[in-house]
Amino acid sequence: MKIIDKIKKHKEENGATTPFYSFEYFPPKTMEGVQNLYDRLGRMLLLEPLFVDITWGAGGSTSELTLEIADTAQNICGLETMMHLTCTNMQVSQIDFALAKAKESGVRNILALRGDPPRGEEWKKIEGGFAHASDLVRYIRQHYGDYFGIAVAGYPEGHSDATSLEDDLQHLKTKVDMGADLIITQLFYDVDMFVEFVGKCRAIGINVPIIPGIMPIHTYAGFKRMTTLSKTVVPQHILDALEPIKDNDEEVKKYGVNLCIEMCKQMVAAGVDGLHFYTLNLERSVRKVLKGLEMIRPDQLHRYLPWAQCASTNRLKEEVRPIFWKNRPRSYISRTGSWDEFPNGRWGDYRSPAFGDLSDYHLSSHQFDPNATSATNVYGDVQSRQDVYEVFANYCKGDKVKKLPWNDLPLSVESEAIKEQLVFLNSHGFLTINSQPAVNGVPSTDKTHGWGGKNGYVYQKAYIELFASPENMHLLIEIFKKCPSITFHALNRKGDSHTNTKGTNAVTWGIFPGKEVVQPTVVDHSSFLVWKDEAFALWQSRWSSLYDENSTSRKVLDEMIDNYYLINVVDNNFVNGNIFQPFIDLVNGNMSPQA
Amino acid sequence: MKIIDKIKKHKEENGATTPFYSFEYFPPKTMEGVQNLYDRLGRMLLLEPLFVDITWGAGGSTSELTLEIADTAQNICGLETMMHLTCTNMQVSQIDFALAKAKESGVRNILALRGDPPRGEEWKKIEGGFAHASDLVRYIRQHYGDYFGIAVAGYPEGHSDATSLEDDLQHLKTKVDMGADLIITQLFYDVDMFVEFVGKCRAIGINVPIIPGIMPIHTYAGFKRMTTLSKTVVPQHILDALEPIKDNDEEVKKYGVNLCIEMCKQMVAAGVDGLHFYTLNLERSVRKVLKGLEMIRPDQLHRYLPWAQCASTNRLKEEVRPIFWKNRPRSYISRTGSWDEFPNGRWGDYRSPAFGDLSDYHLSSHQFDPNATSATNVYGDVQSRQDVYEVFANYCKGDKVKKLPWNDLPLSVESEAIKEQLVFLNSHGFLTINSQPAVNGVPSTDKTHGWGGKNGYVYQKAYIELFASPENMHLLIEIFKKCPSITFHALNRKGDSHTNTKGTNAVTWGIFPGKEVVQPTVVDHSSFLVWKDEAFALWQSRWSSLYDENSTSRKVLDEMIDNYYLINVVDNNFVNGNIFQPFIDLVNGNMSPQA
Repeated sequence: MKIIDKIKKHKEENGATTPFYSFEYFPPKTMEGVQNLYDRLGRMLLLEPLFVDITWGAGGSTSELTLEIADTAQNICGLETMMHLTCTNMQVSQIDFALAKAKESGVRNILALRGDPPRGEEWKKIEGGFAHASDLVRYIRQHYGDYFGIAVAGYPEGHSDATSLEDDLQHLKTKVDMGADLIITQLFYDVDMFVEFVGKCRAIGINVPIIPGIMPIHTYAGFKRMTTLSKTVVPQHILDALEPIKDNDEEVKKYGVNLCIEMCKQMVAAGVDGLHFYTLNLERSVRKVLKGLEMIRPDQLHRYLPWAQCASTNRLKEEVRPIFWKNRPRSYISRTGSWDEFPNGRWGDYRSPAFGDLSDYHLSSHQFDPNATSATNVYGDVQSRQDVYEVFANYCKGDKVKKLPWNDLPLSVESEAIKEQLVFLNSHGFLTINSQPAVNGVPSTDKTHGWGGKNGYVYQKAYIELFASPENMHLLIEIFKKCPSITFHALNRKGDSHTNTKGTNAVTWGIFPGKEVVQPTVVDHSSFLVWKDEAFALWQSRWSSLYDENSTSRKVLDEMIDNYYLINVVDNNFVNGNIFQPFIDLVNGNMSPQA
Repeated sequence: MKIIDKIKKHKEENGATTPFYSFEYFPPKTMEGVQNLYDRLGRMLLLEPLFVDITWGAGGSTSELTLEIADTAQNICGLETMMHLTCTNMQVSQIDFALAKAKESGVRNILALRGDPPRGEEWKKIEGGFAHASDLVRYIRQHYGDYFGIAVAGYPEGHSDATSLEDDLQHLKTKVDMGADLIITQLFYDVDMFVEFVGKCRAIGINVPIIPGIMPIHTYAGFKRMTTLSKTVVPQHILDALEPIKDNDEEVKKYGVNLCIEMCKQMVAAGVDGLHFYTLNLERSVRKVLKGLEMIRPDQLHRYLPWAQCASTNRLKEEVRPIFWKNRPRSYISRTGSWDEFPNGRWGDYRSPAFGDLSDYHLSSHQFDPNATSATNVYGDVQSRQDVYEVFANYCKGDKVKKLPWNDLPLSVESEAIKEQLVFLNSHGFLTINSQPAVNGVPSTDKTHGWGGKNGYVYQKAYIELFASPENMHLLIEIFKKCPSITFHALNRKGDSHTNTKGTNAVTWGIFPGKEVVQPTVVDHSSFLVWKDEAFALWQSRWSSLYDENSTSRKVLDEMIDNYYLINVVDNNFVNGNIFQPFIDLVNGNMSPQA
């Protein structure tokens, strides 16, 4: 949805005097930073910003990452996303590529900028590029019609390159006349100047919303550097207040938050439509400011569903997903991207769940992980099945092994509760790649398991998904025969199948006031068949194939990949079952697992 | 479904050596007897008989009641039903009427009989009627093609009117040749004779299934009368065994059950497809026989859903109903009879829930209730609102008032648990007509609340539906504002509406192994609007309009009907809520209810 339309909707729903807020982020420099940003996006999503905004980075150096983060924010995190696009060092063809990519990701909003020059240089137009943001705006409108919402930057103190403030206002008007429908201002600390700026804009016929850009002061040094660089006017009272506390980081932060709250209050009183926060990829100060402004509702801090919804229009009705892709939402979204209808609350109803083909895209290691190409770095060398077991066990311990081919992240908070049991299983050759503990009706606001808003209760059936040798698989099935509450499905790479169940099993559900039962996660046969191919392929492409072709490690792994079964296990007794008991019985009994 | 097809399916699913069983009932003579039979059908349904069989009654005297019971068994109880039809005193037009009615009810099976003569008379064909069962069979096949499964009676000892056993066998062959696809035998106590009879049938080319008709001995007197009347041969060893215990009813019953078990075992060994029990409208002996034969599975004693499903083919997929018609399933089924699709697990999905018009049929008192036309007999005279309150309260007490216009039955077992609170509410002018207590995850085999089979857990949100004066309705709404877990919807006769909720609320649900969540009962706005009309109309047609037009009783009631609100209240906190608290607060506080 275009931001200008979201603003209209926000006003209709909340009244004209309740401004929205939005957050800006920049592409981090390391893989770890990117992952942290994704986690942060997931948390800040709960604050329900109207949109988030991803910067392009000076000179386009981080352009690919910007595209990926924008895609993730829009589709994995479910945030309405605006992507920056600058003219600096960009050919028209590069701009076209970026716009096409954004469109492909369902991103509907572009912040069109001229961009800063590379550090220490003067800004100059490149051959076959644009000289002004207004040219970029015009180009987008000409070639993409109404598809994109276009925001442009406003400079309350005038752009540093502008000959005069009046001249700069005319530039801004040109940008709007070319098709921009929203203005976001550069950061400032003088609210009066901003209010004056808005007045001047209105006076010359700029009628689109003007959203103030706000940066809470985090550290004294950072504040000084930022305001010097951007030549931002800092009112004397701020300098005076900072002077005595400048060496006390906590005090500076606290002052920064309070200052920001005061500034925001003045701007809300002046009637702004929204508040745009330059977060610097940090969340605490912004959260405190919003809290101070009483803009966060208590029920706003909970997930809507146990998985993050996509913001794409065609997926807004998605209500249920199979559990198998829990740790690979990006792959799931890609493989179901062509669906024109989502299972409408009943998995069984979806008539043609034809998953897209498995491609290199789904199987390759994360492109920003410098270690991804060396298996030894990530997993060590493995000389035997037992060595492989240890890799899995160490991952569960959070020790030595930081990721597995099926999980881009360390063990989730939710799985912490069953960590010990998982280590036990993996050490004994039951190689888990997905799990959730049973939850018997905790409040829907529970910090670990909650989702769906307040006054509800949420439930889960315990789930484990694991690889096991054929011998262990058969022993397990024998034990499962004595467990009336266990349902399972085992498949090897070829598709040999063993199961004691049919139909679709809801493994996560919630009961809420005035609603039907919500059951967002299921275990079903048809998508398990699809997932099985992906799971085995990942083992190979992201692990075994990274070793030398003739290495022992590769042989050990490939033999396992060819023979092992992928097994999903649900303990349907969510009240007092123990999904680990059959495994413990198997290991402790005389039926010891086969290596 | 035709019984012959159900037999085939039963064999496929259970193997050829596991016989089915079926139950025969006769139309009782009193309204109370009919109600008892319905209750019994509801209980015996859990034994999963392949079908039930309703007799026509000698001379067609109970024909209308047979049609009604068959309709109820098929559609309300969800039992595959066979209806007897005899030639005795029946014009072809009457036979056509009965067959048309059966077809309309979705009854697919007819037991075609000549029928007994009126007591003390010789059997004779009437003008424009049929002389033989075979004529009736031929007629049904000619005029109804393959729609009906047709069973006929077999006489292992020969029919009393037959000239010889061979002659009688030829008659039976004619009936089969005319189109009968199933034979059910007259009662007998000599198994060898039955086995011989089957052999003779096969020898002359009768190849349809032959099902033995079995009547456990209940009392000595009844046994003697029955066998004398039907000239049934009783082996000497049975007479010898009964002689010393004939005055001890308990001993006779016990012997009857054991004899029956032995007979059945012999017949099962001889390879019968099924066992047909003449129940005499009793259930205990048959249940004991089946238990003795180890034919009842433990999981067979539970309801499939909290309401009885229809056996009609087009309703087999019905998975959810609004709670409003809980005490009037017959009306609900009638008013939704034209639906070609049932809400498929998600009430909201049903696109056109156009309920059939409210007709006299839905509003008239039960046709077999002799007291129904005198309001004074049923409810007494009411001189004030307070008198009306007392009628409702007395109904909840199970005292004086045995039924209300909205409930054909006394308070359900389930509501016993909240009886005291209901009496309190009704005495204070909150006139409840439907309710269920909260249930927080009891095993699905729970005797009171269980449904859906074993290894599951079932839940309910507390529900009350009541009439209240406008004053009380407004006071309630004020109190509800302080109860975050309460959702409600109030409507008066005109349709003035007050509510704090939208959408559909699942108020009964169950969690079962390997399945999606089952949510068979909902509270929703659109069907509440439909039910409201019925609820107010019932108050008038079944209560106020039964008083004299100028009586005080009628005036008091009509004034209430015109002004009161019908309110549905759900306490969404099924874990530790108390739906009665707001009412108690209202009554005990200074906001005392207005009379």
